[in-house]
Amino acid sequence: MTSTNFEFKLIASDGKARRGAITMPRGTIRTPAFMPVGTGGTVKAMYMDQVRELGADIILGNTYHLMLRPTAERVARLGGLHEFARWPGPILTDSGGFQVMSLAQLRKLTENGVTFRSHIDGSAHEMSPERSIEIQGLLDSDIQMQLDECVALPSTPKDIERAMELSLRWAERCKTAFGNQPGKAMFGIVQGGDVADLRVRSAQALKAMDLKGYAVGGLAVGEPQEVMLDMLDITCPELPAEKPRYLMGVGTPDDILKSVARGIDMFDCVMPTRAGRHGLAFTRRGKVNLRNARHADDPRPLDEESSCPAARDYSRAYLHHLVKSGEALGGMLLTWNNLAYYQQLMQGIRGAIETGTYVPFCEETQAEWAKGDLPAYP
Amino acid sequence: MTSTNFEFKLIASDGKARRGAITMPRGTIRTPAFMPVGTGGTVKAMYMDQVRELGADIILGNTYHLMLRPTAERVARLGGLHEFARWPGPILTDSGGFQVMSLAQLRKLTENGVTFRSHIDGSAHEMSPERSIEIQGLLDSDIQMQLDECVALPSTPKDIERAMELSLRWAERCKTAFGNQPGKAMFGIVQGGDVADLRVRSAQALKAMDLKGYAVGGLAVGEPQEVMLDMLDITCPELPAEKPRYLMGVGTPDDILKSVARGIDMFDCVMPTRAGRHGLAFTRRGKVNLRNARHADDPRPLDEESSCPAARDYSRAYLHHLVKSGEALGGMLLTWNNLAYYQQLMQGIRGAIETGTYVPFCEETQAEWAKGDLPAYP
Ligand SMILES: [Zn+2]
Ligand SMILES: [Zn+2]
Repeated sequence: MTSTNFEFKLIASDGKARRGAITMPRGTIRTPAFMPVGTGGTVKAMYMDQVRELGADIILGNTYHLMLRPTAERVARLGGLHEFARWPGPILTDSGGFQVMSLAQLRKLTENGVTFRSHIDGSAHEMSPERSIEIQGLLDSDIQMQLDECVALPSTPKDIERAMELSLRWAERCKTAFGNQPGKAMFGIVQGGDVADLRVRSAQALKAMDLKGYAVGGLAVGEPQEVMLDMLDITCPELPAEKPRYLMGVGTPDDILKSVARGIDMFDCVMPTRAGRHGLAFTRRGKVNLRNARHADDPRPLDEESSCPAARDYSRAYLHHLVKSGEALGGMLLTWNNLAYYQQLMQGIRGAIETGTYVPFCEETQAEWAKGDLPAYP
Repeated sequence: MTSTNFEFKLIASDGKARRGAITMPRGTIRTPAFMPVGTGGTVKAMYMDQVRELGADIILGNTYHLMLRPTAERVARLGGLHEFARWPGPILTDSGGFQVMSLAQLRKLTENGVTFRSHIDGSAHEMSPERSIEIQGLLDSDIQMQLDECVALPSTPKDIERAMELSLRWAERCKTAFGNQPGKAMFGIVQGGDVADLRVRSAQALKAMDLKGYAVGGLAVGEPQEVMLDMLDITCPELPAEKPRYLMGVGTPDDILKSVARGIDMFDCVMPTRAGRHGLAFTRRGKVNLRNARHADDPRPLDEESSCPAARDYSRAYLHHLVKSGEALGGMLLTWNNLAYYQQLMQGIRGAIETGTYVPFCEETQAEWAKGDLPAYP
């Protein structure tokens, strides 16, 4: 189902947890949604067909990586990111700001934007709110993010406030630069670190701008999970109910369960893909480290009940062998398993909200994680 | 089609080129055949299902790698290499001797065998003809190779002769160790370097042992292609027509065309897989280096007429980007493309022999390679 306009509709709710759908020209995003991260135009070690078949409705692209290589202008000449990366569905791009601050060299931040040098070849670049939106437009991104400044935690309240205020001014500029594009959306980003008042002020100011969606940024940047959840408790009620809410860069399966319970609709995280390349599997029995010698002689699969071939058809002994040997197939299979687990979790979440069973769903899911992995073989 | 016995039958011939079939309990191998190399129980960066779908009837496993990790005993406990690596079809294993001599440390060769230390962890190991066959049996390999000594070229005739004679004595010991296994085969290996007389003596002595198949070893080890082809011209007529002939570790598409013309039935080589991981694509227009900047803006696929999605559906610009960025998907797609090209070549070869058009087939194939890649875009 597609729509010529970007539209969000709430289908069901259970407590503060929301079941919804974003419809737009390139497809429908069932929410709560997890967006696999396709940093440089590829979800690492996956074919796009696999990503699609797992049930992902949307993927994320990183503006910083793509602007440096292959460059936004080149992607545009090649027909846009969907055509380039062979992902026909919706794509969300970040603004590039977060990675500029974490990866680039010789960064200099002013009211106008950031200047920096590429971590790949040292070349000089400029990123302003307008340039970020221009790049995201060249990529033909369906959901674009405002440029913001995200401070690491802990930071002083003064620094957090300054960055939050700057982010609000940049939100206005991004809104203007984005203009009127009915089939696409530009989301604002709530900042304010771990300071409740600042979060409220940021959310209210963004709400007044009447954007098509709202992200919560600057969380999962070093603070305890409890602080993150407190900030969601404070922020979500300030955001309009009829707009989608996206918690950036989060998180573990448990983070997702608890954030959905607080009214979050969208997530992205490198965790399932990155962990997969490092020998870690997410399963309904919790996290399993395939590097561990206990798996070396174990003929059992990661999860015999999974519908994902990577989880169901390959022995732990084989996965252990691949991981220990540094074989590409190890990362391919574990990434596949992990993205499958995340998408199955989201499907479970959506079903539970629809049937008004979200609380018991979370309790059962968490209880299974807590029971832990299978006993050692044999 | 399977058979309870290992059987080779000639279906057609065209000059010295042979079209045949090996039937055995795990399946039929259409010859001439190219065996993708699955060194450590995985054809690097490929799912086994893909390898199968490309038309490979058999894959190769490396005894040296598998005996060190995960060990042959462990593979046996886990049900054998077919079950472990999820490849139900026939598997050929080498003897381990070649990799011991090229990869292992502190090698010491005696009449009895080789002692060496693992390149992975320095552990001490022994490899005798009997132990090589024992390991290949533990792996449950369908076609096992005798332990031999392979000298690099150039070497002195005296060294070549000594290694050839030792290899003959080891062939006898391997034959005895292998015993009577109707559904499997143990192949002898013709040695003799670039010395015609030694090749003939080796082939005749092995023929007298009445083995189920014969390999030609010690070629493609540094000598010009012409020397290799001369040795095939001399060796193949000495081998019994009713047994399959396997040219070990060869080679380029051109090596394969010319070796089939001299009566070779089976090949293996790391070239398509290794080249794929290094940004090189084999195509009907010859070798294409995706690292080259000429591809950066090229929306055309590697080969729009290929039936392989990697060749047909992805732009050169995207492949270039993946390779330059070191993305896993680059190696996955180019390995897929390359193995597809090799299997398509073998299919073409088999068809041409059947229809008595092998010479024009080779001429046309070589002419297309010579024309080279597409002109630069646009
Ligand atoms: Zn994250
Ligand atoms: Zn080779």
